[in-house]
Amino acid sequence: MADVKKLESYGAKLGKNIRSASLALRGVPHKQIVASLKEIAKGLKNSEAQILKANEKDLKEARKAGLSLAMIDRLTLTASRLDGIVKSVLEISKLPNPLGTQLSHYIRKDKLEIKRISVPIGAIFFIFESRPNVTIDGAALCLKSGNAVLLRGGKESKYSNEILAKVVRGALVKTGLPENAVQLVGKSDRELVNILLKDDAHFDLVIPRGGERLIEAVVANSKIPVIKHYQGVCHMFIHKTASLEMAKEISVNAKMQRTGVCNAMETLLLDEALPAKTITQILGALEIAGAQLLGDVKSRKIYPNMGKASSKDWETEYLDPRLSVKMVAGVEGAVKHITEYGSGHTDGIVAKDKKVQQYFLDNVDSSSVMVNASTRFADGGEYGLGAEVGISTDKLHARGPMGIESLTTYQWQVVGTGHTR
Amino acid sequence: MADVKKLESYGAKLGKNIRSASLALRGVPHKQIVASLKEIAKGLKNSEAQILKANEKDLKEARKAGLSLAMIDRLTLTASRLDGIVKSVLEISKLPNPLGTQLSHYIRKDKLEIKRISVPIGAIFFIFESRPNVTIDGAALCLKSGNAVLLRGGKESKYSNEILAKVVRGALVKTGLPENAVQLVGKSDRELVNILLKDDAHFDLVIPRGGERLIEAVVANSKIPVIKHYQGVCHMFIHKTASLEMAKEISVNAKMQRTGVCNAMETLLLDEALPAKTITQILGALEIAGAQLLGDVKSRKIYPNMGKASSKDWETEYLDPRLSVKMVAGVEGAVKHITEYGSGHTDGIVAKDKKVQQYFLDNVDSSSVMVNASTRFADGGEYGLGAEVGISTDKLHARGPMGIESLTTYQWQVVGTGHTR
Repeated sequence: MADVKKLESYGAKLGKNIRSASLALRGVPHKQIVASLKEIAKGLKNSEAQILKANEKDLKEARKAGLSLAMIDRLTLTASRLDGIVKSVLEISKLPNPLGTQLSHYIRKDKLEIKRISVPIGAIFFIFESRPNVTIDGAALCLKSGNAVLLRGGKESKYSNEILAKVVRGALVKTGLPENAVQLVGKSDRELVNILLKDDAHFDLVIPRGGERLIEAVVANSKIPVIKHYQGVCHMFIHKTASLEMAKEISVNAKMQRTGVCNAMETLLLDEALPAKTITQILGALEIAGAQLLGDVKSRKIYPNMGKASSKDWETEYLDPRLSVKMVAGVEGAVKHITEYGSGHTDGIVAKDKKVQQYFLDNVDSSSVMVNASTRFADGGEYGLGAEVGISTDKLHARGPMGIESLTTYQWQVVGTGHTR
Repeated sequence: MADVKKLESYGAKLGKNIRSASLALRGVPHKQIVASLKEIAKGLKNSEAQILKANEKDLKEARKAGLSLAMIDRLTLTASRLDGIVKSVLEISKLPNPLGTQLSHYIRKDKLEIKRISVPIGAIFFIFESRPNVTIDGAALCLKSGNAVLLRGGKESKYSNEILAKVVRGALVKTGLPENAVQLVGKSDRELVNILLKDDAHFDLVIPRGGERLIEAVVANSKIPVIKHYQGVCHMFIHKTASLEMAKEISVNAKMQRTGVCNAMETLLLDEALPAKTITQILGALEIAGAQLLGDVKSRKIYPNMGKASSKDWETEYLDPRLSVKMVAGVEGAVKHITEYGSGHTDGIVAKDKKVQQYFLDNVDSSSVMVNASTRFADGGEYGLGAEVGISTDKLHARGPMGIESLTTYQWQVVGTGHTR
């Protein structure tokens, strides 16, 4: 009990600090924020030896604890990876200022002026797994958009995060920003996270970045609004009017360019009106590229060299070379399947017929819809948003790839000359 | 137990209906939606006698149950009120189409085209108190923005809502829209509302419209995102550079033009640097207009004819003629008070000094900030938004007065010519 009380009082302190830092940031000129980001980049460069040493400590414990090679890889910092992080901070510093933009402007007949101006969201709670680059990314993105941020990384990156946060906070102080604009949760207790997630008086938004289980736990416990990134069960549909070459290239690219990512294709939908020869060539190309095919009854009749797909496959995000394959009755059949089994992330069509393309665009309710392009393009960088905050599978506030604009909200500013109603 | 099961299966049916209606609405041309809204207006006009009769039944029961006069007034429909509702539907039908707007457009060097297009949110659960005009308003606003809506009004308006929903659904069918695009919750059980609030598979958004208790209950039980309208503890701050006339007029207007509304002033903040004579004149004008003043120690020294304000007053939304009055040290003191006690709804300043105005705009984190204008302007109609969906006290998705635009989200549409990554 005493422990819970201690955690509660520590959590309350973090919340109060973040709120007052977020308010203090409101009045800071953008030039100063940019200067601060540059100072962070400089500080990281100057502290390279210390940072790598701390990271080595994390890695040693991770190896002892028998973490998977993939996890250890993500945890690892090297001089060149740190350079990449520094570069990313400098890039974020150069993005256009997302604050103070006039989103709408209306002058009434009585001369009352009504403006909608972009402002920071306020105080953000950023929860992520053991990837030290995300620590800095999260801090830089939030600062650039005028938000204060509380960072909570995985416990495996404890030592790395401590030194990274220290460097960032040092740079904040040096450039006259509130030190608490970036805070690190200094204890790894899960109860503490749940305490913080109830503190909607001091936090405006939670962004969990990581696997599905992390996100589900945050959603289940949070009183603060959450922007979620659930799974991507992405589809490509090949219409009978598709060019064979394009269908092959896009299918192979959407599935095999990188399999472990949310915007990779998981199910290929084939128009029943396609010639058997075309289907054979598309599936053959996928197989040659290394895809492991699982087909429905109809597709296996045409291309028998596939495993059997069960209905569970239609809703599975494999994140590996497996690909489920299904025959559907035209674009209506494709839309029906996507509506029933898709996750609303990214779905695409290959077709020459413009009307069919439009039907697909009008009826697929996903955050990104691709016409004659690979699902792999659903990404903030590819969309020209600059640094990516994440990919939202929510429909409200931000949808799909999120740039720093998604870390802002707006304020109505009404200027009169003594107007009364 | 059997009852709960019945409610669950009824709730599941409502959810499934709403989702399929929302998907069916995606492809409907805007012209058809407008035609449908006009048909609704016509239907309401034609069914006037039946509607008033059903309303009379509600009123009879309400009187028997001893409802307050204010509640009975809100429940009451008359021929002229029904005319107002019909007019409002026609006005909503004429608003610009909020769907299909290109919010951003980016053509990459490789000619891949990336568009952000406004689309409906999808399926909305609209919960409100016993005001039959809100039934129609909610249906019309959701339809205009391409959303399917489940309406749940207070049980006191049962008969009125039944006939209103019947008229609306008749008009939908007549104009070829899915009948279930507008549904009414046909049972008044509270458990049913809680069952529906867990159904985030079929609903995208909940909008509760009503008192604080209703909203709190919805927030506490909902798994679906909620747009909330909490209280408005609104302030006006009179700076030492304010014109006396303007200060008097705006203060009286903000407090007394209508007291029972969320954008009425509840606390008046007076600059300590104001001359005692000015303060006396402002407070005198408020008193003459009928305000019941409650002052802090300092203000009562200047204007003794006030009750004592306690610290609880600073956070109270009176919604009546009471007004708390406090002396503060300049604009910094005003911002500090508003930050501590305000509800983030609407706050204003009267000042001639431009720098002071800007400081106030930069540092007050409320959805609307007024400069030399009354807080009473914080309203969708006054802001030129057309019909108002509500006023959001949330920071995400929509903030402050919400027009139909706030019932839309966006979709990324990516058009290539065989682009792969």
